[in-house]
Amino acid sequence: MKKIFFTPGPTELFPEARKFIENALDENICSINHRSKEFMDVYRSTTDSLRLLLNIPENYSIFYLSSATECMDRIVQNCAEKNSFHFVNGAFADRFYKTAVELNRNAAKAVADYGKSFDFKNTEIKNSPELICFTQNETSTGVQINTGEIYGIKNKFPQSLTGADIVTSAPYVDLDFAKIDFAFFSVQKGFGLPSGLGVLIVNDNCMEKAAYLKSKNMAGSYHNFISLHENAVKYQTTETPNMLGIYLLGKVCESMNSYGIERIRKETEEKAEMLYDFFDNHEYLKPFVKNKADRSKTIINIKTGDKQNEVKKMLAEKGIVVGSGYGKFKDTQIRIANFPMHRIDDVRKIIETLGTLNI
Amino acid sequence: MKKIFFTPGPTELFPEARKFIENALDENICSINHRSKEFMDVYRSTTDSLRLLLNIPENYSIFYLSSATECMDRIVQNCAEKNSFHFVNGAFADRFYKTAVELNRNAAKAVADYGKSFDFKNTEIKNSPELICFTQNETSTGVQINTGEIYGIKNKFPQSLTGADIVTSAPYVDLDFAKIDFAFFSVQKGFGLPSGLGVLIVNDNCMEKAAYLKSKNMAGSYHNFISLHENAVKYQTTETPNMLGIYLLGKVCESMNSYGIERIRKETEEKAEMLYDFFDNHEYLKPFVKNKADRSKTIINIKTGDKQNEVKKMLAEKGIVVGSGYGKFKDTQIRIANFPMHRIDDVRKIIETLGTLNI
Repeated sequence: MKKIFFTPGPTELFPEARKFIENALDENICSINHRSKEFMDVYRSTTDSLRLLLNIPENYSIFYLSSATECMDRIVQNCAEKNSFHFVNGAFADRFYKTAVELNRNAAKAVADYGKSFDFKNTEIKNSPELICFTQNETSTGVQINTGEIYGIKNKFPQSLTGADIVTSAPYVDLDFAKIDFAFFSVQKGFGLPSGLGVLIVNDNCMEKAAYLKSKNMAGSYHNFISLHENAVKYQTTETPNMLGIYLLGKVCESMNSYGIERIRKETEEKAEMLYDFFDNHEYLKPFVKNKADRSKTIINIKTGDKQNEVKKMLAEKGIVVGSGYGKFKDTQIRIANFPMHRIDDVRKIIETLGTLNI
Repeated sequence: MKKIFFTPGPTELFPEARKFIENALDENICSINHRSKEFMDVYRSTTDSLRLLLNIPENYSIFYLSSATECMDRIVQNCAEKNSFHFVNGAFADRFYKTAVELNRNAAKAVADYGKSFDFKNTEIKNSPELICFTQNETSTGVQINTGEIYGIKNKFPQSLTGADIVTSAPYVDLDFAKIDFAFFSVQKGFGLPSGLGVLIVNDNCMEKAAYLKSKNMAGSYHNFISLHENAVKYQTTETPNMLGIYLLGKVCESMNSYGIERIRKETEEKAEMLYDFFDNHEYLKPFVKNKADRSKTIINIKTGDKQNEVKKMLAEKGIVVGSGYGKFKDTQIRIANFPMHRIDDVRKIIETLGTLNI
């Protein structure tokens, strides 16, 4: 039986992924020089398609790194000389915070209870941060942060560089880039591609700070924003990148553009609503995130208590693989991803299957 | 006509690369969790096969990064608090040096004339380097450094961490790992795989230095050697890695192990000899590296003068793609890679084709 992965990522591949990979091999994408005209065309095409899909303004640079974790590393190196501030609503937000600590920055944080968002009005940001980091969709807890709250903090701290990890919400999340300074994601989540590529989007304010930090030899080596930008304007990268990954991302973006991002967003909301409705009305299996406004549309955490094994097994018998909970909830929750390649019919199958669970 | 890439990398894919990629897709390698038992088995198998192929001792850790350029970055961060020394015999050695400068280290260098190796006896290393870096096979010039010279420097500076970039010589180069501290390569060269994976091999001495630098928050974030090692012993990675790349590298290593590394090395030398013999006896097209002992067996730089276009065109008509020269030799040299997947019949075709060149 063919397996369908509803895991938070790596996850189900985009339906045409295999075809795109075969095309890449036929077109020698893995053998051509990364500074050749042919690859520059691939690079440009991917960047154009992604810019269109996510509505990224022209004055925002798009950089191709190796993972979202690397994006965190390079953002801290290039955007904070001393102080950063982190909204920590789960394990991945905490990793961003720890990255800043490991890079010897004075990192401060506000911590939300697991499964909840922040009390933004009463959150104090005291360390005059140069950098303010959000995890807009926290993959460990299934909590989303309303983008309006992020813009609000940006307004309140105009001197800080403020941005968000959108690893498991892109391309669903409809960010107004003009109201933030940076965002990043990796391709093995909502884009349904093999892992090994992170995408970082930064504006001129970030570039300005990076130039200052580079002048002090604090911005890192080959992946400092200045070197990345010098190459990006030539449709090239500093090092030999994951060329196949860049090619595939372009193809998926093209396909999504032709399907329509609004349609993808609408369908994501419909599927999320079906799932939350079902679990809200379930006797035993309940959504972990209680407050509806805080519920992620793309990562749905469900409390299973001691039924986790049974639930996973029932779904596996239908070919459906869901994720376990994260960290301390590893054995008492499941996580169901709801990405563009997850079909409504398979969501129905999850609901039908779990409808027969005997408590 | 099918193209055959004799470029220095990205280059011709390993003959079974497409099959391995298809197997990976069939086995859901791009959808499984990177911390699952299934992926840990892939990781372990790749590491075991690579260790066998390159004869890497058990006390050397193998880390999977994203590129050879990243390896340079992480080596400097983890192995030098203040001073590094670089043997610069071309553009890639110079990039290693510049990486140290960008990371705010006091980097010193010895510079060889382009196309030549070093006068090791008379090279002064004055800055008490914690780290000494070689580019064993310089891809820009086609100069190789005799491994004995590297071991000699290591002997002379036992307190330094000494190692080599073997990006375009692996797996041909027969390194005695016990006589160096680290080495690294990327997979889009001699392993004939899609780019996006770098492999770093380090010993206990490097780990000790990294632990010291980590205690001072100087070793970097997620890819500091300590975090890399903590995950590697669990057959995992710090972040979601290039899982497909790790899988494919394992398959290529298995295939090479079954073919026999000695046979691969012998054939590499035979093909190199055929090429150098031909060009040594050619009226016009001459090897760039004059001293035979300094000539790379895997990257063969040929002076073409104003015939570069003609040479590349003649070969292209037979389906053979060679590289241009590097940097200032971009338009006056060609580079011919001689990796394990380059067949002797195709080497003969290069020789036959260029034998008809009208001067």
